[in-house]
Amino acid sequence: MSSGNESCPAPGPSLWDSPWMILAHVVVVSLALLYIQSTHWVYHIALWIEYVTTPVPLIQVEMTDAEAKDDGVTSEPLGADEAISILDPNKPGFIQCYDPATKQHLGEMKAMTAADVHELCVKAKLAQEKWAKTTFAERRLVLRTIQKYICHHVQDICRVASRDSGKVKVDALLGEVLTTCEKIRTINEWGELWLQPSYRPTGPMMVHKSARVEYVPFGIIAPIAPWNYPFHNAINHIISGIFAGNAVVGKVSEHTSWSSSYFDRIVKQALKEHGHDPNLVQTVTGLGEAGAALVAEPLVDKIIFTGSPAIGKKVMEGASKHLKPVILELGGKDPMVFMNDVDLKQVVPWVMRGCFQNCGQNCVGVERVFVYEGVYDEFVAQAEARVKTLRQGGPLECRGNDADVDCGAMVMDGQMDLIQALVDDAVAKGAKLHCGGKRNVSDACKGGQFYEPTMLSGVTPAMRIFQEELFGPVMTVIKVPDNDDAECLKMVNSSCFGLGSSVYGGDAERALKLGRQLKSGMCTINDFASNYLVQALPFGGCKESGFGRFAGIEGLKALCLERAIVTDRIPGVNTTIPPVIDYPIDKQKGLPFCECLIQLFYNESIVDKIKGIGGLIKYG
Amino acid sequence: MSSGNESCPAPGPSLWDSPWMILAHVVVVSLALLYIQSTHWVYHIALWIEYVTTPVPLIQVEMTDAEAKDDGVTSEPLGADEAISILDPNKPGFIQCYDPATKQHLGEMKAMTAADVHELCVKAKLAQEKWAKTTFAERRLVLRTIQKYICHHVQDICRVASRDSGKVKVDALLGEVLTTCEKIRTINEWGELWLQPSYRPTGPMMVHKSARVEYVPFGIIAPIAPWNYPFHNAINHIISGIFAGNAVVGKVSEHTSWSSSYFDRIVKQALKEHGHDPNLVQTVTGLGEAGAALVAEPLVDKIIFTGSPAIGKKVMEGASKHLKPVILELGGKDPMVFMNDVDLKQVVPWVMRGCFQNCGQNCVGVERVFVYEGVYDEFVAQAEARVKTLRQGGPLECRGNDADVDCGAMVMDGQMDLIQALVDDAVAKGAKLHCGGKRNVSDACKGGQFYEPTMLSGVTPAMRIFQEELFGPVMTVIKVPDNDDAECLKMVNSSCFGLGSSVYGGDAERALKLGRQLKSGMCTINDFASNYLVQALPFGGCKESGFGRFAGIEGLKALCLERAIVTDRIPGVNTTIPPVIDYPIDKQKGLPFCECLIQLFYNESIVDKIKGIGGLIKYG
Repeated sequence: MSSGNESCPAPGPSLWDSPWMILAHVVVVSLALLYIQSTHWVYHIALWIEYVTTPVPLIQVEMTDAEAKDDGVTSEPLGADEAISILDPNKPGFIQCYDPATKQHLGEMKAMTAADVHELCVKAKLAQEKWAKTTFAERRLVLRTIQKYICHHVQDICRVASRDSGKVKVDALLGEVLTTCEKIRTINEWGELWLQPSYRPTGPMMVHKSARVEYVPFGIIAPIAPWNYPFHNAINHIISGIFAGNAVVGKVSEHTSWSSSYFDRIVKQALKEHGHDPNLVQTVTGLGEAGAALVAEPLVDKIIFTGSPAIGKKVMEGASKHLKPVILELGGKDPMVFMNDVDLKQVVPWVMRGCFQNCGQNCVGVERVFVYEGVYDEFVAQAEARVKTLRQGGPLECRGNDADVDCGAMVMDGQMDLIQALVDDAVAKGAKLHCGGKRNVSDACKGGQFYEPTMLSGVTPAMRIFQEELFGPVMTVIKVPDNDDAECLKMVNSSCFGLGSSVYGGDAERALKLGRQLKSGMCTINDFASNYLVQALPFGGCKESGFGRFAGIEGLKALCLERAIVTDRIPGVNTTIPPVIDYPIDKQKGLPFCECLIQLFYNESIVDKIKGIGGLIKYG
Repeated sequence: MSSGNESCPAPGPSLWDSPWMILAHVVVVSLALLYIQSTHWVYHIALWIEYVTTPVPLIQVEMTDAEAKDDGVTSEPLGADEAISILDPNKPGFIQCYDPATKQHLGEMKAMTAADVHELCVKAKLAQEKWAKTTFAERRLVLRTIQKYICHHVQDICRVASRDSGKVKVDALLGEVLTTCEKIRTINEWGELWLQPSYRPTGPMMVHKSARVEYVPFGIIAPIAPWNYPFHNAINHIISGIFAGNAVVGKVSEHTSWSSSYFDRIVKQALKEHGHDPNLVQTVTGLGEAGAALVAEPLVDKIIFTGSPAIGKKVMEGASKHLKPVILELGGKDPMVFMNDVDLKQVVPWVMRGCFQNCGQNCVGVERVFVYEGVYDEFVAQAEARVKTLRQGGPLECRGNDADVDCGAMVMDGQMDLIQALVDDAVAKGAKLHCGGKRNVSDACKGGQFYEPTMLSGVTPAMRIFQEELFGPVMTVIKVPDNDDAECLKMVNSSCFGLGSSVYGGDAERALKLGRQLKSGMCTINDFASNYLVQALPFGGCKESGFGRFAGIEGLKALCLERAIVTDRIPGVNTTIPPVIDYPIDKQKGLPFCECLIQLFYNESIVDKIKGIGGLIKYG
């Protein structure tokens, strides 16, 4: 009891009991409810309850020795120096798989035909019809089961990805495992909200209608994946695809097919564990024929292609024959810009990661380093010192290797010929080669497919390496004269690619101002590739880098048929056709009636609006 | 003063002065601000002030006699019965324009070459670079100027559209003028909000970053338009295109090129009036060569094609060579479903409008009428009576015609041969022809291109007319046996098209349940085509009806480069690479450090998360 009450035991009706206070309380409660709804508290609390009350099983997935142990491959290297082929004329219909770091034979995978692809799609479609009826909670549980398996088998996944692609394990961990986990986490946290019907304003003429867009599963989504991130590329579109209610029939690259068997088993086991048909997810292995079959397959509703512009054109041309929608993600020539006010000590680690992560085999890898004149000389000196420290070799513990390396192998032997040509061209046209610039045939790399970490400075737009995608461990440094933002912008945008970009500057505002003028689908300021760790953001580019977006809200919705639905807002209040414009139309009244509608709703003059109302009464 | 206060003049500190009440007030004010923001009140009030304080000029646009008067064409009809060509061998490089209702010659338009198209694009690009810097308010003013002109010249626009396409004026008013006005109104009211940066949640690992998607003008948008709505198709993508900051270089159909000159003048005059470069908007006239040139033109950033699936495939194939994004809107075979509990009196007007509006030349025209068995006989009787009342003839007052007609002419003579073939096939396979079924050569139609309003019942999926788009004034009635929703669904979805759809039922819930299972991009319940009068909704289909969306939020954003941007959230707090994974990588620590990151952020077990933190401290 307050002292006020004691001194005055019967104060009569207070302000608290007035109608105003009651109204105030109603307002507060309403606003609070609105706030709760707008910030999705209820959704998040329900999600949290779902998480803590639903146990996630730890699934068991069988592994071969080559998958389970760093030194688990018993086959001998195929040959010391010559390039090897994934095709063996004695074994038609199969792809030969080998470890690019050691050229050890890993096994063979079927080179699927159009008939094989069709069979997989038929199975997937059957599974999808049931899957489309599952709740988001059921789908989340499958994804959490995959995530739990990943958390408990990080080393296994890194090893298998590393064995198939020759990458070092840290690259697999950051580029494959971390990104995949964040994708699952984001989709599970936000996906259901993103796929809720989106209600739309209906305007004054349609005020009695309710309009919304619903997101309906397409059916079968067919990603066609590249070889640079065997695990993440295989599972990336499965996560969003099945969350949206689709089946996913994905083709993996012929260069990294071996690992797909293990990754496919993980997803299928997670589906089986919860009583779902594992046929929902299918992995297509094979060559161009299998990819073309997916594009032509009537059961496939959408294609997501990641690869080169040349193949992207073919995919789109094939899809045109069947009017199939495509998303194309076609690589880039990503710029990293260092303005004259950067702190070099802080940014040099970023250019190292941008250029040498995954040995440069990265669609958003940094392929053009623009350095403002004011810091150019010092930058080149510091970067050169760092590049020279990089160690290269087979990343797994086999053949006596203890895996203490920074850069791994190149997935495709032929790619190194292109890199060599681009480096040679640059040097011939005046670029300075600081280190690297050739295949690595040192003892640590013997017999494998390795290209030395390379640094070029003094690169100019006249060189091929400025324009053509190289996809290798090469840092190409370009000087921006006079610390001139406009000149930098002109050079950056002269590329035919437009995927990612990053700008570093002491003045973040100035860096952002420049970044927003770069013709690219993505831009990070004072950071590199962090947009892909924000899985609520869309991923994709413009120009020769393709179009369409995966990841993020846009990417998830792109896996759905977006259907516009209009219903009556008030039960029993239907729209009827005004008699004067019902057939047969009353000539003297129909036309002026419609014109009065226009005047009422779209003429801004109040006088004309009133005349419109008068006309509607007169002619209606 | 309340009586309580009087009886107790010094009640001491009340609850109103307590910290709790201060807190309550802060909460109320915060919530109120949040509410105001979430409902965009401030935006709408500012918009209202902009509208009332910015005067909109009424522009003057010159018109020829043929444009300005119903009987303004002085040329004689070209010939009584034979089909006429838009090409004259004596005048190469030009398209001959004529009125399909009278075959009067209207003039000729240039059949543009690739060089012509390129020249227009160069001009447009120059104008766009300045236009991209305009504010949304400046763009709104241009659109309001167009809208004001439209409101003051409804009859002129209807006449010109009618003359070029042979449609009746009410169809032009509802299908062209009304839709265009609503599009301008919607874009002007909501467009700026829709194109605001979209901020995204960043997740626990990226909590220090700010992530957003920005909507950047593409550059040049190139719509390729069909002939069924000469005014709306010409101006539709201009409205959204220029609002989003683009130039628009649009190709109109060779069958309705004459009217495009007037419509182009309106837009250019509105731009000029406010000091903008009228070259921002360009109209391409010509044949396939001009369309192909637009698709191949490097300055064009995106294609929006509306037309047939056959040409759609060619457009996409052409675009594939240049990796150009396309939106394809390719017509349909739209179903209108009448369940057994409909009120026939109320719904028959709808099927009449669905089938005969614009003489059936409507991408979302009703081409398949599904009627449940329970109301089938009565429906057929009522519909037949109504179809037989329809009057047909030249819609404009010329050659003694007083324009008292419900159905106009067909834009393309050849189209009538296809319609005839489909009708004949249906009749041969057992459909009942109630009326029409042939070209109209009555006095009112003499010399023009007319097809009689036609009604067929007993149509089945085995007939060509069930599957092939006919684009004409034909009502095809299909019986749904046993009033069975599942059977209806199966029949509707057996089409290779999937654009619009509508379901009518006394039980709106049941109708919606069926409608949501139809494979189509749009669905209205107890209404027809009202989704297009809700211009906040996207327009587009699936299957052979194409992909991508125009109109609505989706359509406006599709005219922009969607760019993902990541910046630091807190000034001065930059992301740095942890030393253990900076090159050269510390082998003993780098890998376990990364694995601990995974455990901390993605392992759901609290124990494992804590272990993860411990590991990060140990290895970091």
